[in-house]
This record gives sequence, structure tokens and C-alpha cells, in this order.
Amino acid sequence: MIICRNSSEARAQVAQWKREGLTVGFVPTMGFLHAGHVSLMGLAAREADKVVVSIFVNPTQFGPNEDYASYPRDEEGDASKCRSAGVDLLFLPPVADIYPEGAETFVECTNLPEHLCGLRRPGHFRGVTTVVAKLFCLLAPDVAVFGSKDYQQLKVLEKMTRDLLMPIRIVPGPTVREEGGLAMSSRNKYLSPEQRHQALAISRALGEARRAVEAGENHAATLLAAMARTIETAGGRVDYVNIFHPETLEDLDVLDVLDGPAHAAVAAFFGPARLIDNLRLRE
Amino acid sequence: MIICRNSSEARAQVAQWKREGLTVGFVPTMGFLHAGHVSLMGLAAREADKVVVSIFVNPTQFGPNEDYASYPRDEEGDASKCRSAGVDLLFLPPVADIYPEGAETFVECTNLPEHLCGLRRPGHFRGVTTVVAKLFCLLAPDVAVFGSKDYQQLKVLEKMTRDLLMPIRIVPGPTVREEGGLAMSSRNKYLSPEQRHQALAISRALGEARRAVEAGENHAATLLAAMARTIETAGGRVDYVNIFHPETLEDLDVLDVLDGPAHAAVAAFFGPARLIDNLRLRE
Repeated sequence: MIICRNSSEARAQVAQWKREGLTVGFVPTMGFLHAGHVSLMGLAAREADKVVVSIFVNPTQFGPNEDYASYPRDEEGDASKCRSAGVDLLFLPPVADIYPEGAETFVECTNLPEHLCGLRRPGHFRGVTTVVAKLFCLLAPDVAVFGSKDYQQLKVLEKMTRDLLMPIRIVPGPTVREEGGLAMSSRNKYLSPEQRHQALAISRALGEARRAVEAGENHAATLLAAMARTIETAGGRVDYVNIFHPETLEDLDVLDVLDGPAHAAVAAFFGPARLIDNLRLRE
Repeated sequence: MIICRNSSEARAQVAQWKREGLTVGFVPTMGFLHAGHVSLMGLAAREADKVVVSIFVNPTQFGPNEDYASYPRDEEGDASKCRSAGVDLLFLPPVADIYPEGAETFVECTNLPEHLCGLRRPGHFRGVTTVVAKLFCLLAPDVAVFGSKDYQQLKVLEKMTRDLLMPIRIVPGPTVREEGGLAMSSRNKYLSPEQRHQALAISRALGEARRAVEAGENHAATLLAAMARTIETAGGRVDYVNIFHPETLEDLDVLDVLDGPAHAAVAAFFGPARLIDNLRLRE
């Protein structure tokens, strides 16, 4: 596995592979890798000849009171996981390569971020689209893989890639869960064992909502109240619960069969950790 | 010369050339081509093996009360000029290829547009950076050429390309002038013969300012007042006159030798036409 800390070298290596007729799959991450990331690497390897993983804790996607400084890092452990997963190039760019001095250019979606996490984390998705656009322009992969746990991020990046006419295919990876159902997240590290147990309420609330829909419940308000109750009863603090159209992300009031698909998402605090999860309620 | 109205075909043709080891120079335009554009095509041909010209009147860079609907068009004349200039591919994308339905992604510089034309035309440079980023992502040229008459645009696009880590070299082309000094512009078409004569005051004002600086004048206020007077005396209406640092675009009050280079720009209305021009006052 090549480890590269220099943007020009990373670009040159990817360009070399492409000149040889090989396709390149890209998994952008913020590191502190877990089984969810590893599953994305496997997906990238199935979709392309060479796999590039980047680790970059992107300052512009954190709010001023968020956990940029304390975001967990483990470069050695990450490199070892990438090597085991058969990654070809691990790219660890310095901040100054991604945000050169005087950088002032941002890439922004104007609609999809006006929902869900975007409302709770102003500027977050602007930071995400900006950094991913830069990495896409730098490396020019054929395929990029993003996890479905960050559902809104996936939808925003699909839209950005399409809107900017980038010749990159976005492939969603399924949410990987710990035993008991907790969605894998680097931020699970912030949880005490007790909080980790309590946080199972998030996926439980989503599962209960799906079963209620299957049983005929079609009022979003009823479903949302039950989801919030499940999380609060377990000791969590709800940041939001939402039921929405999975493409437009617009709120649904009634899950009428005629309305098509419905998706649910949760953000909740357990102790210091803000955790998110989501589930398709109906196709 | 290939004429292409389909984005996928244009991308495929450029990619084919690049696979053959040829470099591609790109001249994005809004059409109604004049000798200034033709000089950019010549520059692109010197810098790259193949020359692509796009003609796209970009809706997002016009304000609500500007001349999008009436912007002059002459597809046949333009094609003929491109053919004579040795252009290899003339790309005429439909609006729906560049702004697919539901497009909501914008590329924006946050500092350089806060000067000069950016202050007079809110949203203009956001439209420019968005469309050029799309065309760059679509075609992936090696070199792109922009005219220096649109000086702020050139600086904004240089910054955008660098910030987004795009492997595209921006080459500035010199301003081409009609006899008497009027900078070539598609909008010169809006001028009556008398207004065209009056509009010579723009380049005259800039030339007088440079000569005054050469003669020792170093107060921007004095220079700006003289420039405005020259334009108004000729019957023009000044939109702005400005003296600024040519890289940061920040206003200069005193052109102290220690301050380094200085640049001047004018925007003025003559009849219905808003015309711009600029000149380096001192290196």
C-alpha cells in the first residue's frame, strides 16, 4: 500500500493508473476507521481496479462549537486497517494542500442542506461539498463510495456531483451496525459503556417506526412522537427526528401510499456524542 | 471543425484526444465573437494541441434587470469565425445540459467578488464561477484562456481553479482594442456610432491615469477624479472607477512605490451599454 502525504504525488499516482487503463475507486474519510469504512473499501474494490482512501479531518465542516479539535485520530491503526482491506493508496493530505493560503472558494448546495442535519449544523454541508469537490478535482476517481449512515451527506454529494457534471459515479454503501443495532460511527468512541447501551434506542426507534408503518400507521406525527419517546426514555436527548421523502428530503405529514417512499432519520445526543441514524420506512 | 451540442459527446471527444496524448486548450465564451475572442483561440492553439471553444450564454451570471434575454447571438457568424481560427471543437451546450433539472449547486469565491463589478452586479461572479467550474469538470481541459478585459473575472477564475485543486492552467489573453482604443466587447453592439465614439473616453481615461502615475501623481483620489471627469465629459455615466492592488483587488489610496503594483478599472454606461476596461498603472 502506498502512503502519500502530498497532493501532487497522489494525483500523479491516480493519473498513472488511469493512463494504464485502470479504474479508480475512492473512499474519502475523516479517519478513525471502523467496520463501516472497511465495508466501503470492499465496495470500492468491487467497483474499480484500484482503491484510494483519504483521511482528512476537514475543518470547514465543523461548527465553531463542534468537535474538530477533539475528533478522534489513529493514523497507525487506520493504515493497518486499510492495508488489511487491500487499499492501494492511502492519502493523508496536509490541511495546506486542501486549503491553500488565501483559499476562498466554496461549493454549496442550496436546497438539500436546508433539512435535517443541515438545519442543526449551519455551514456543515458547505464544508462537506467543498472538501469533496476539491478531492474529486484533485484525484479524478471513476467511482466514489459514501456510507448510508450519513444519509443526507450521501444525497447532497450525489446532487453536487451530478450538478457539477463530474464524471464520477457515486456508490452508496449500506450502514454497518454493531451488535444490538447501533450504527458504526467514529463518534461512538465518545460513549461510555452505559451510554453505548442506551444509544441502542436510536436504531430501535427507527425499527419500531418501520414496523408501525408496515402495520398501517401513516401519520408522521404519531410515528415521530413514538421515536422521540423511545430515545428519551433510554436517556437520550433528541436533536431531531424526521420523516421525509428520501430524494427531496422534504417533510412528509402523511405516509399516503400514493406519496411514494418515506425515510426516517434521527439525531440524538447520548452523553457527549451526537449520533445519527436513518432507515427507509417504505419503498 | 466538430460542432457539438451534446455534453456527453463533447466530453467523449476531449477524453479521446487526451487518451491520444494530445493536450486541450479551452476558450469558454458567451458567443457573438469578436477579434478579442479570436485572439484567445490563437493563444489556446499556441498552448495546446487541440482547441475547444464553448458558446453558452450563462443565465446565472446575469442579474434580474440585466441583458440575458437580449444578449446578442450569432451562431452562424460565430461558427465561421471559429472555423477560420482553426478551432477543433465548437461546443454549444443546451441550458439543460449545464443546469440539469433541480440543479442547486453553486461555486463561489467569497473575497475577490467583493470588489469592482462584484459590488455592482450581486451574484454575477457566483454565476461565472459556477458555470466555469461545470465546464471544467465536464471537459477537463489542460489549459483555459480568458481575456484580460474582464480583469476581475480572470482573477476570480484563477483563484477558483487553484482553490478547487483543478489541474488546469489559466492563461490570460491581452485586451484587444478597436482603432481608437475601445476594448472589444460583444456589448459594443449596443452602441450607436456616436456613442461608440464617446466611449473612447474609457480607454483614454485609463491611459491618462497611467501617464499621470508615470509623471509622479500618486494619490488615487486625484487620479480617480480625473478619470471620472474624462468619462462624464464625453457623455458617459460612471458606474465605478477604481485603483487597486492587481492580485487582492483591494483599494489603494496612495500609490506609494513601496506598495508594489497598481491597477485601474472602469465601468461606465454609454447609452444602453455598460462597458468595462482596465489597465496596469504601475508594475
